[in-house]
Amino acid sequence: MSTNPLSEASKGVYIIAATPFTDQGELDLASTDSLTEFYLEQGVDGFTILGMMGEAPKLTEEETLAVMGRVLGRVGSRAPVVVGVSHASNRAVERLSKSAMDQGAAGVMLAPVANLKTDEQVYNYYAGVLKALGPQIPVCVQDFPQATGVHMSVGVIHRLVDDFSQVVMLKHEDFPGMRKLSEVRELSAAAGRRRISVLVGNGGLFLPQEMLRGADGAMTGFAYPEMLVQVCRLFDEGRPEEAEDLFDIYLPLLRHEFQYGIGLALRKETLKRRGAIRSAFVRKPGPSLNAIDLAELTRLTERQTARLAARG
Amino acid sequence: MSTNPLSEASKGVYIIAATPFTDQGELDLASTDSLTEFYLEQGVDGFTILGMMGEAPKLTEEETLAVMGRVLGRVGSRAPVVVGVSHASNRAVERLSKSAMDQGAAGVMLAPVANLKTDEQVYNYYAGVLKALGPQIPVCVQDFPQATGVHMSVGVIHRLVDDFSQVVMLKHEDFPGMRKLSEVRELSAAAGRRRISVLVGNGGLFLPQEMLRGADGAMTGFAYPEMLVQVCRLFDEGRPEEAEDLFDIYLPLLRHEFQYGIGLALRKETLKRRGAIRSAFVRKPGPSLNAIDLAELTRLTERQTARLAARG
Amino acid sequence: MSTNPLSEASKGVYIIAATPFTDQGELDLASTDSLTEFYLEQGVDGFTILGMMGEAPKLTEEETLAVMGRVLGRVGSRAPVVVGVSHASNRAVERLSKSAMDQGAAGVMLAPVANLKTDEQVYNYYAGVLKALGPQIPVCVQDFPQATGVHMSVGVIHRLVDDFSQVVMLKHEDFPGMRKLSEVRELSAAAGRRRISVLVGNGGLFLPQEMLRGADGAMTGFAYPEMLVQVCRLFDEGRPEEAEDLFDIYLPLLRHEFQYGIGLALRKETLKRRGAIRSAFVRKPGPSLNAIDLAELTRLTERQTARLAARG
Amino acid sequence: MSTNPLSEASKGVYIIAATPFTDQGELDLASTDSLTEFYLEQGVDGFTILGMMGEAPKLTEEETLAVMGRVLGRVGSRAPVVVGVSHASNRAVERLSKSAMDQGAAGVMLAPVANLKTDEQVYNYYAGVLKALGPQIPVCVQDFPQATGVHMSVGVIHRLVDDFSQVVMLKHEDFPGMRKLSEVRELSAAAGRRRISVLVGNGGLFLPQEMLRGADGAMTGFAYPEMLVQVCRLFDEGRPEEAEDLFDIYLPLLRHEFQYGIGLALRKETLKRRGAIRSAFVRKPGPSLNAIDLAELTRLTERQTARLAARG
Repeated sequence: MSTNPLSEASKGVYIIAATPFTDQGELDLASTDSLTEFYLEQGVDGFTILGMMGEAPKLTEEETLAVMGRVLGRVGSRAPVVVGVSHASNRAVERLSKSAMDQGAAGVMLAPVANLKTDEQVYNYYAGVLKALGPQIPVCVQDFPQATGVHMSVGVIHRLVDDFSQVVMLKHEDFPGMRKLSEVRELSAAAGRRRISVLVGNGGLFLPQEMLRGADGAMTGFAYPEMLVQVCRLFDEGRPEEAEDLFDIYLPLLRHEFQYGIGLALRKETLKRRGAIRSAFVRKPGPSLNAIDLAELTRLTERQTARLAARG
Repeated sequence: MSTNPLSEASKGVYIIAATPFTDQGELDLASTDSLTEFYLEQGVDGFTILGMMGEAPKLTEEETLAVMGRVLGRVGSRAPVVVGVSHASNRAVERLSKSAMDQGAAGVMLAPVANLKTDEQVYNYYAGVLKALGPQIPVCVQDFPQATGVHMSVGVIHRLVDDFSQVVMLKHEDFPGMRKLSEVRELSAAAGRRRISVLVGNGGLFLPQEMLRGADGAMTGFAYPEMLVQVCRLFDEGRPEEAEDLFDIYLPLLRHEFQYGIGLALRKETLKRRGAIRSAFVRKPGPSLNAIDLAELTRLTERQTARLAARG
Repeated sequence: MSTNPLSEASKGVYIIAATPFTDQGELDLASTDSLTEFYLEQGVDGFTILGMMGEAPKLTEEETLAVMGRVLGRVGSRAPVVVGVSHASNRAVERLSKSAMDQGAAGVMLAPVANLKTDEQVYNYYAGVLKALGPQIPVCVQDFPQATGVHMSVGVIHRLVDDFSQVVMLKHEDFPGMRKLSEVRELSAAAGRRRISVLVGNGGLFLPQEMLRGADGAMTGFAYPEMLVQVCRLFDEGRPEEAEDLFDIYLPLLRHEFQYGIGLALRKETLKRRGAIRSAFVRKPGPSLNAIDLAELTRLTERQTARLAARG
Repeated sequence: MSTNPLSEASKGVYIIAATPFTDQGELDLASTDSLTEFYLEQGVDGFTILGMMGEAPKLTEEETLAVMGRVLGRVGSRAPVVVGVSHASNRAVERLSKSAMDQGAAGVMLAPVANLKTDEQVYNYYAGVLKALGPQIPVCVQDFPQATGVHMSVGVIHRLVDDFSQVVMLKHEDFPGMRKLSEVRELSAAAGRRRISVLVGNGGLFLPQEMLRGADGAMTGFAYPEMLVQVCRLFDEGRPEEAEDLFDIYLPLLRHEFQYGIGLALRKETLKRRGAIRSAFVRKPGPSLNAIDLAELTRLTERQTARLAARG
């Protein structure tokens, strides 16, 4: 079991970890190690592995277990690790969740399956899985309609919080979703409801605004995690203007990485350039970068470096 | 005001009336008259005009009023007429609804605007419009997610019934939707809730099953309304097997007309062949029939005629 | 290698085989055997396993191989078996395809991954996979936009036929899609293009019309395969009216099974009632039948039995 | 006819003009005037009216003509005005286009109707309308799949350019869409094809990158048009770093306005605060701002003001 279980008090930056491959598309576990160390050096508070941006649907079951074991082993007690367990079959969710927890995961993250349409259907899906998992496995509910096609209302989120004590975290990435984030906080406070952790995704594009609206941190994979870490700490220290000044320096590149699809290729390329992984390979079908894309990324990175230098 | 207001007791066949054009695409009000008489001769219990299958979004405002005035004037007190008022703007819904009621409509039918995602959003949309319309205008709520992209839960339908006395009818055409129809009836009965009228759409493809699950009739535009009328009456008289025997004879052609898009062209072609309208023209962009389509329709129609003859 | 490779000349009924589970949700390989024999007894010309209706996304890799091995071993040289290999990762498609062919599959069926938008993207996706698979593996292209969200134009289908000799079959289940089927045939003939096999899906709802438009048979899983088999043979013998007379007797139940989602539960229940499998269990999340659904199915089945009896 | 017809040489900033209402939701033509002058004072090169962000679908026909007449009359020969004419009916497109041109519009902008799936369908839709409009009406093709659901390939765009001389402009707002923009330019140049004007939308979120990839300007409605104008001019003068330095100062607010739905309310609120219009009212159903939203906007605006001041 984890020494760092996910809880309502979890906060800060849970980095969405990329899954490194070789240029031939094989798992590169040595790069998994170096990437893990890179993230820890940048000060992340936790990890989320095997999410959509971790190319989880493109791994075999054996590879899934290999990545999970490698990261959990490497991180050890240094940080909590959340494992993405979303799957078309409830049996698979249950099996992977139990395996993850046995190996020391801090909790699991679960997005809804496709084709859930109404509040009732979304609630029933989660209720079914949560009952099977039991109250001992901390769960992060992932609300990401752009990817899942499923729209989760504030009411559904609160019903889940009320009925299942293991729901301790919301990954908020509805877009536009700031009103929703405020409602989650306000309606929860008004009802004296248990306050859960809310970490934001969507590449962090609205991180400062979301921190001011009650988020507890970010769960995203921007290739400059040190910025996310500093921004969250500055907010925590009550210094929102400084936090956002720093954020704004990185905003052009963060916005660039926000592009769905090609964003993953850009992120891996940056991680490679920063020495964190050896190859920027993305499994097929998937995006790749051409000469224009690479030059564009270089130019934006140089502009960011210059602005950071000018800031002193 | 209507002498036949829509109510919870409304039942039978509310025909979705086609809007006839000339071969040049102009409104053909003479055909509107003949079509109206045709429907009445086939025994329909009511009309629904200016629905999606009535090409309402392709009419100018002037044409909309012309069609509405013509049908309402022609039908007079012979049957209730429901007017489709769905629109991107609430002001337009309100204006058209009031105009329809002033001219003698029995009520209005309203589908949700696009991009409503959660139960809360759907409820709020309807609540906003229903308050503006006031309790004097009977409303049929159209639940047609295949066309609107909006999914309405049983809970939302019931909240609307509870909060707005003017909601007297549901046009049920979620697909697959039979479970939902049963839930609407069961949960309503269990809660001692006001029982509203439920008419089914989707071309009537599951009409017998839906009647057995508690529907009160059909609101669809099949080009052989006499079958729908007889089937509903036979169900009403407690003769479900005879009803479905008749239905099954028409099922091949009904299924053929069920094809979205081209179904409207097939329906108008059949109405033209039956002498109800002068042209099968569908406004552009829209489907048209080629020689293969026409021959296929002829063959299916002849098979139907033969089976009706064999039945005696 | 298969003794019955899929080819442009393949025709008749390729049954979409259900995957039987126990009531506890475990694979039931004994029922896989009995179901395989049931299908063969009904006269099917071929099998398609591990398709969407075979709950393939809900199987573990081990289960996938177990089902594949069991069916291929049982069928042997008695009929060609097509294996569904659609997957989010090209590597997985390649691996499963090779494994299937090694064990004697007749070919593989491939649907596009989600999020392909334009003709160019669809073509490039297939081209990438087809090159990796090589010309020795016969491929059935599955065109099923309602499930995949990907729309394949006639032009794309023909480019694939022109550029890849291994594309020998199209599973046609766009809806409405009859115009498209005719265009595939007409534009192919007009250009002197290689004529591929076209089998139709969508539950067979338009099978007679599609046979008349040039289909070579059906690839669907209706729980009364004997009807599909007889209908295809009658069309082959130039007896379309008799074919459609028979089809029409089954149409009410076939239409009933056509309901997405719950249709699979209805199909498995019927197969269980017919003695082909021991349990109608569908893996979660998935549809289940309540008392009303079961009674409704019984009634429709009895009506079908009565009509078959009346026909003599 | 316009003294400034839209052409392949059109460039710079075509502002997507908001449609001002009173707090009661009536057209506010005095604000239409003041907003028009505001835009001209900020230096815009042209206007686009009656687009999606101009709430066109919520206007009556009379209001549509009133807004069009007012803006065209006010602008006069000072700038070209493009009129959005997208509509469910081709007849309506034709009627509005002719009316616009008669009153002096520079051209029309047309997005595809919903439910076009393949390249062939998209091409045929445009071909049908373009033939009806004739070669004298300059047309801007709007490629905005996030709103229309229609995906237009580079091949389709080029076929339209090749076949219809009146297609002189592309409004590019596919997202992510930078690769596509480069392909439009590269494949066009490689084929010696007529080079059309490309203006970018999506709120301008990637304007600098898009200018470097060959865009000719922006067609968007950011409430600080002066920035867009200066950025486009600096790019035109070959000063991309200065252009992007300026852009980056506005990026936080531009990104904020990028939020679909609520973005329009934020934009109108900013225009009101800047004195360009009297009310920020958005017609229902539509977004409105609460106290948190307003305070957030104030804070972001103040941060922008401070950064502009610091820059000197």
